[in-house]
Amino acid sequence: MSTLPNALCPPHRVLLGPGPSDVAPSILGALAKPTVGHLDPYFLTVMDEVRSMLREVFGTQNELTFPMSGTGSSGMETCFANLIEPGDEVLIGVNGVFGGRMVDVAERCGAVVTRVEGEWGRALTADAFREAAAGKSFKILACVHAETSTGVSQAIPPLREVANEVGALLLMDCVTSIAGTPLKLDGWGVDAAYSGTQKCLSCPPGLSPISFSEAASDRLSARSKKVQSWYLDLSMISNYWGSERAYHHTAPINMLYGLHEALRLALEEGLEARAERHQRNGEALCAGLEALGLELVVPQEERLPQLTAVRIPDGVDDGAVRRHLLENYGLEIGGGLGPMKGKVWRIGLMGAGSTSRNVALCLSALKTALSSQS
Amino acid sequence: MSTLPNALCPPHRVLLGPGPSDVAPSILGALAKPTVGHLDPYFLTVMDEVRSMLREVFGTQNELTFPMSGTGSSGMETCFANLIEPGDEVLIGVNGVFGGRMVDVAERCGAVVTRVEGEWGRALTADAFREAAAGKSFKILACVHAETSTGVSQAIPPLREVANEVGALLLMDCVTSIAGTPLKLDGWGVDAAYSGTQKCLSCPPGLSPISFSEAASDRLSARSKKVQSWYLDLSMISNYWGSERAYHHTAPINMLYGLHEALRLALEEGLEARAERHQRNGEALCAGLEALGLELVVPQEERLPQLTAVRIPDGVDDGAVRRHLLENYGLEIGGGLGPMKGKVWRIGLMGAGSTSRNVALCLSALKTALSSQS
Repeated sequence: MSTLPNALCPPHRVLLGPGPSDVAPSILGALAKPTVGHLDPYFLTVMDEVRSMLREVFGTQNELTFPMSGTGSSGMETCFANLIEPGDEVLIGVNGVFGGRMVDVAERCGAVVTRVEGEWGRALTADAFREAAAGKSFKILACVHAETSTGVSQAIPPLREVANEVGALLLMDCVTSIAGTPLKLDGWGVDAAYSGTQKCLSCPPGLSPISFSEAASDRLSARSKKVQSWYLDLSMISNYWGSERAYHHTAPINMLYGLHEALRLALEEGLEARAERHQRNGEALCAGLEALGLELVVPQEERLPQLTAVRIPDGVDDGAVRRHLLENYGLEIGGGLGPMKGKVWRIGLMGAGSTSRNVALCLSALKTALSSQS
Repeated sequence: MSTLPNALCPPHRVLLGPGPSDVAPSILGALAKPTVGHLDPYFLTVMDEVRSMLREVFGTQNELTFPMSGTGSSGMETCFANLIEPGDEVLIGVNGVFGGRMVDVAERCGAVVTRVEGEWGRALTADAFREAAAGKSFKILACVHAETSTGVSQAIPPLREVANEVGALLLMDCVTSIAGTPLKLDGWGVDAAYSGTQKCLSCPPGLSPISFSEAASDRLSARSKKVQSWYLDLSMISNYWGSERAYHHTAPINMLYGLHEALRLALEEGLEARAERHQRNGEALCAGLEALGLELVVPQEERLPQLTAVRIPDGVDDGAVRRHLLENYGLEIGGGLGPMKGKVWRIGLMGAGSTSRNVALCLSALKTALSSQS
């Protein structure tokens, strides 16, 4: 190449999109700490601490609880690839992009999928699952706890009942809920869960914490065929994260330093206090958006406090407004995905980014951007 | 949990194992720079610069060249999962752990694998591939350029000839060679290559740069069936790294900052100068080990300068010596893998770690550790 690029000097954004969210300074600092070997006694302690803090954040005692070495979608694929054998019947709720992605992933693992279709921007009812199940048995019932494409919060306990009725393990996406909305994997009877680091944990993207119940682990042990993905095969990876410390792949050391610090910050704040902070700031944002005359996508009782979808008013140019926010305020908000592209904005108040300062900034900047459109 | 872990304070090791290697200070600094969004205009420039620097380091003009969001093994799986359809015949050289891993990965993708077995610690000959091929046709011929489990360097051009004879694409593991040994993907006619960041690029583990030739890209486009892994499906991921910028998964932003800086450092030094430095320090280490009366595993002409396997003398306790080095010098060297466990040490001089200072430290510390054993 003709000229070498300069060293990076990224701008300091305020990240109020659907993730990555603003990263706490001490987490950025943790990423830059000296790398040690992936079998170093010091690192083994880091791993153990990460696991025990993750269990606390997930609300579980599950032995099989650790971060996968990939982003949230790798966690989704981990859950399906390890639990599905070709021909297995799977029931999946689809009321947004990530439910739809689950269907694609499960089918690639050989599942026969029954979709439970629902309106985008609304939660799914237990009865919708029952109806779609039509009395059949299923190996897995899968749903998204916090749908990042719409900002919908899904109640989990009623779906556990349906899972019992159809004989299924309950699989849950909690990428956007972890550390923002309280998780009770054990209390709710969730068998497999995956999450991400770049939402309410405020860590950069790159890891996907997962957790498997005893029933899910038993399903894994009873497989008749190898997991189709070597990289995501929990039967091998759990031997590295467990007491055997058997080498599988080289763990992403520095990313795990970051996750360690992110979990520490969440537990130091307290999970209930953290959830209340997300709730308070999310409500303030919604009130402010409505005061600007904007329409929210999700009815109040089904809203996620950490991610708010708001309709783009008729005649307003999606891209121009978002460019205005980025160029004039260094402020990022998200566009819509799939059928909502160009129709909604998605505003995240996640982790370190969920502050009254950011609510004020966002409302003020959005008001200016909208008036520049008229 | 009863008490919250303390903030991390990792010890400052000298990493002379098989990777991760010592990380250059400016790369650690890059990891801690402010996170921006994965569709931020600034980040799109970072992505383009990473791609063009990667092409230079790989020695290729391949359009499909970018880092996968996982460690080296995810790159291995990416190559096989995207190129194999069930029933495809694949010819794989196996003279160490990573050749063996390729077999496992390829079989999980549905390949019918023919192994070309060779002695651990020796390169494979083109004739060994011909013999194993036995006149049949193959879809892929796969080999390891730099076998991390033994320290063997594999000459690639003779295997391109065999690949032509059997009608195969040529697939190469260059996890440990990239940025230490010159790579000439285009010159050698390599169709698919994967690598890692935590060896001679001196970046922490977490990304796997890959590159596909036009022939490999054509194979991908001509698939009759979806790639079995959603997370590693290049037909979708290339739409994010390409001009469409279509969202697939959230890129690991800060790890990519680190890779950007690692590539910059490699090109600033110059790839030839960097290879000469690795060669010079590797030779000095070998001479010093032999002067200590130790036996090297690999004959001189097949040795990798960046990774040296040395036999553990009879009666010497593997674990005790490595513990001695770690506890007294903060020095990490690697143990053996598979059949070489307890029989060899693996000493890496990779990237920022390939210095005359580290050669001197390693030899001096090893001498003391060995004498403490007698």
